[in-house]
Amino acid sequence: MSDNIIKPGILSGFMELLPEKQKIFDEMQGTLRDVFSSYGFFGLDTPVLERSAVLLAKGGGETEKQVYRFDRGDTDITMRYDLTVPLARYVAMHYSELSFPFKRYQIGKVYRGERSQKGRFREFYQCDIDIIGDGKLDVLNEAECPAVMASALKALGLKEFKIRLNNRKVLNGLFEIYGVSDKKTEMLRTIDKFEKIGRDNVIEELTGFGVEASKAGEILDLVTCAGSNSEIEAKLAGFAGKSEIFDEGVADLKKVAEALSASGVSEDNFGYDLSIARGLDYYTGTVYETQFLPDPSIGSICSGGRYDDLAGYFIDRPLPGVGMSIGLTRLFYILDAKGFFDETPAPPADVLLLPMTEDVSVALKSAAELRNAGISVQTYMEQKKFKKKMEYADKLHIPYTVFIGEDEIKEGKISVKNMTSGEQSMMTIAEAAELILNK
Amino acid sequence: MSDNIIKPGILSGFMELLPEKQKIFDEMQGTLRDVFSSYGFFGLDTPVLERSAVLLAKGGGETEKQVYRFDRGDTDITMRYDLTVPLARYVAMHYSELSFPFKRYQIGKVYRGERSQKGRFREFYQCDIDIIGDGKLDVLNEAECPAVMASALKALGLKEFKIRLNNRKVLNGLFEIYGVSDKKTEMLRTIDKFEKIGRDNVIEELTGFGVEASKAGEILDLVTCAGSNSEIEAKLAGFAGKSEIFDEGVADLKKVAEALSASGVSEDNFGYDLSIARGLDYYTGTVYETQFLPDPSIGSICSGGRYDDLAGYFIDRPLPGVGMSIGLTRLFYILDAKGFFDETPAPPADVLLLPMTEDVSVALKSAAELRNAGISVQTYMEQKKFKKKMEYADKLHIPYTVFIGEDEIKEGKISVKNMTSGEQSMMTIAEAAELILNK
Repeated sequence: MSDNIIKPGILSGFMELLPEKQKIFDEMQGTLRDVFSSYGFFGLDTPVLERSAVLLAKGGGETEKQVYRFDRGDTDITMRYDLTVPLARYVAMHYSELSFPFKRYQIGKVYRGERSQKGRFREFYQCDIDIIGDGKLDVLNEAECPAVMASALKALGLKEFKIRLNNRKVLNGLFEIYGVSDKKTEMLRTIDKFEKIGRDNVIEELTGFGVEASKAGEILDLVTCAGSNSEIEAKLAGFAGKSEIFDEGVADLKKVAEALSASGVSEDNFGYDLSIARGLDYYTGTVYETQFLPDPSIGSICSGGRYDDLAGYFIDRPLPGVGMSIGLTRLFYILDAKGFFDETPAPPADVLLLPMTEDVSVALKSAAELRNAGISVQTYMEQKKFKKKMEYADKLHIPYTVFIGEDEIKEGKISVKNMTSGEQSMMTIAEAAELILNK
Repeated sequence: MSDNIIKPGILSGFMELLPEKQKIFDEMQGTLRDVFSSYGFFGLDTPVLERSAVLLAKGGGETEKQVYRFDRGDTDITMRYDLTVPLARYVAMHYSELSFPFKRYQIGKVYRGERSQKGRFREFYQCDIDIIGDGKLDVLNEAECPAVMASALKALGLKEFKIRLNNRKVLNGLFEIYGVSDKKTEMLRTIDKFEKIGRDNVIEELTGFGVEASKAGEILDLVTCAGSNSEIEAKLAGFAGKSEIFDEGVADLKKVAEALSASGVSEDNFGYDLSIARGLDYYTGTVYETQFLPDPSIGSICSGGRYDDLAGYFIDRPLPGVGMSIGLTRLFYILDAKGFFDETPAPPADVLLLPMTEDVSVALKSAAELRNAGISVQTYMEQKKFKKKMEYADKLHIPYTVFIGEDEIKEGKISVKNMTSGEQSMMTIAEAAELILNK
């Protein structure tokens, strides 16, 4: 290496894939776009850079420490760290031009300059869906989001997942019933840590907030109860009539579960879990987390919830909504590490076309005709030994090679070789198209 | 507006689209991906942020002034300003894992903090294709890139464009013939300005470099000659045999034109233009610019060329290549301003489904069945007046509404209304699918 060569490398915490893996990743993105579109969600694209005053309107906390932020002239700029704040800004800014309920998805990169660690990325794709109402939004939308995400996860080839549902009103109602509503936020945060820190530590924290140990135990018994949806409904029924907000939450939870079933989502793929609180104050109704059943330890792969005030920082008008999000980069990283894609072939083309004569015009015409028939064709124009060309096709897992030499030109045909079986025969382009497309 | 509301707005120089326009933009991106893939190009995705030492390896010039650059801890970071430097870094970094010729496309946002002006963007999509060889790369690849781009532009619905071809060797050979090779770079840059500053000013600049005015005139006469490809070939033939490099350039130019024709690109869509030099030193063979014929004043909409050394800053090995690029954000902006998309409907869904009963389970089942039949269905669950719901469908240009009330549930059918004709009738889901998909 000469002295003035710069070592090519990328920043740590950034994912970059080799071509075959990138193709699988891109296909996953395409699948998500297709599913979201099939439910009539518009796709949005917002700038990666926004004014810091906009992106950090909420201010404070971990977020502010993690963002990439810089000055340009006299402008204080931040790179987006999620797709929700840009959505809030977008809806407020374009309010009069949008129709409500506004259903949108966005697949885009977001940036968090947090400490780099395995499986944590500083640049990653989020795939969000949200439904925003103008003033009001029917609770049935809280069933639509998980129905969309269940379709999406299945379309990605993930069958064993469970979308776990809870409703903030159930928890808040429960705190009301036990007379501990004044510590609502702290209690939610503590309960949210149940899986991480365990029952005893949660009870200890709750008693620290002034909750009697026996009450804390009863609350925890309910919120951590396991069972089928109907078993959990039966337990909830024992508290009916004691708190309006509790009863409302239970009714909403049932309505969402019924609508999810009617939408064709199997009970294998969703269920109540009253321990889910989601850290954010923001949520007011249904909340979601999604367990990847083959390995629950990876944490939720798709989360979200209902909120009552999307854009209060930007517009003086209540915009309730519900949304869910997949962190695609992390999900891909985990699945890849588990060998999920090992059997997925991702060749760049169906056919590698090799001209065998100096005049390549017939070969080029044939390539164009094959493409018109819906076949992807890579041409190989280098002056290399035949063996090298075959190795190239093999290395890229291209399933067919097509040769066009003097004989083929004379016959008006092409020779097609199946790279797996080794079979080769001469045929018309129409015959080749049929063979290759029915592969 | 209350006092603590932040005005929602975006930074100047950033494009953000309303949902219907965004849908058209996304479809254009999808079209480009499909065309590039049909030629067997792999899609790549590289980080938006890279080490400044990498992205600015070439250093100096306007680029360095325009980039967004900031420090994070002790890391000097730059936002990518094109997709070529990241490609060079990628190929050098993953050299041993790639197969050559390596054909890749990349569609991604790039950043240039230049002075904001109408139609110039600080964040914009570039859509690049490149073919990279290992040591060598056949000249036929210089025909493949414009063939791909001609397919791409046609697929985008742009019919009236002309890819203008030149070859650096022709120009360099010409300078050799006239004995003015020592001022090669300056002469190329000056000739490149022909359309902008006019013949007289070009001659004045050239004589400033020590070229005799008569020679400058002769050179300019040749490089600005108009005519069909065969007419220009005839003019070039007059200089044959005087310079090896010139003869090679002419042979390459002809070979590229022949291969382009064989690939199915019409002479309406490509032609020689010997005045095209492209500013960059970087190019060594064929160079391209693409005129949008309805309005040539907008400048080239797709440009590029052949280069001999992609990644010399990162790897001690010659990697020749050829590439072309479309600046999609600017192209979209121009086409949109010309009303190019005015007649393009972009509804979020084929169907707006309206449940007319309190129990929405049949409606949700029907929506799922319609989606399984390949129809995109948005459900509308809000408690609004019927008229409001129709207005919503109309405003979003959704072509069909589907109603499911008591009668429909009893009959096991759905009512479908064509929103354009106003026709409405009750039918099975299978019948509805046929009607809507054959719209």
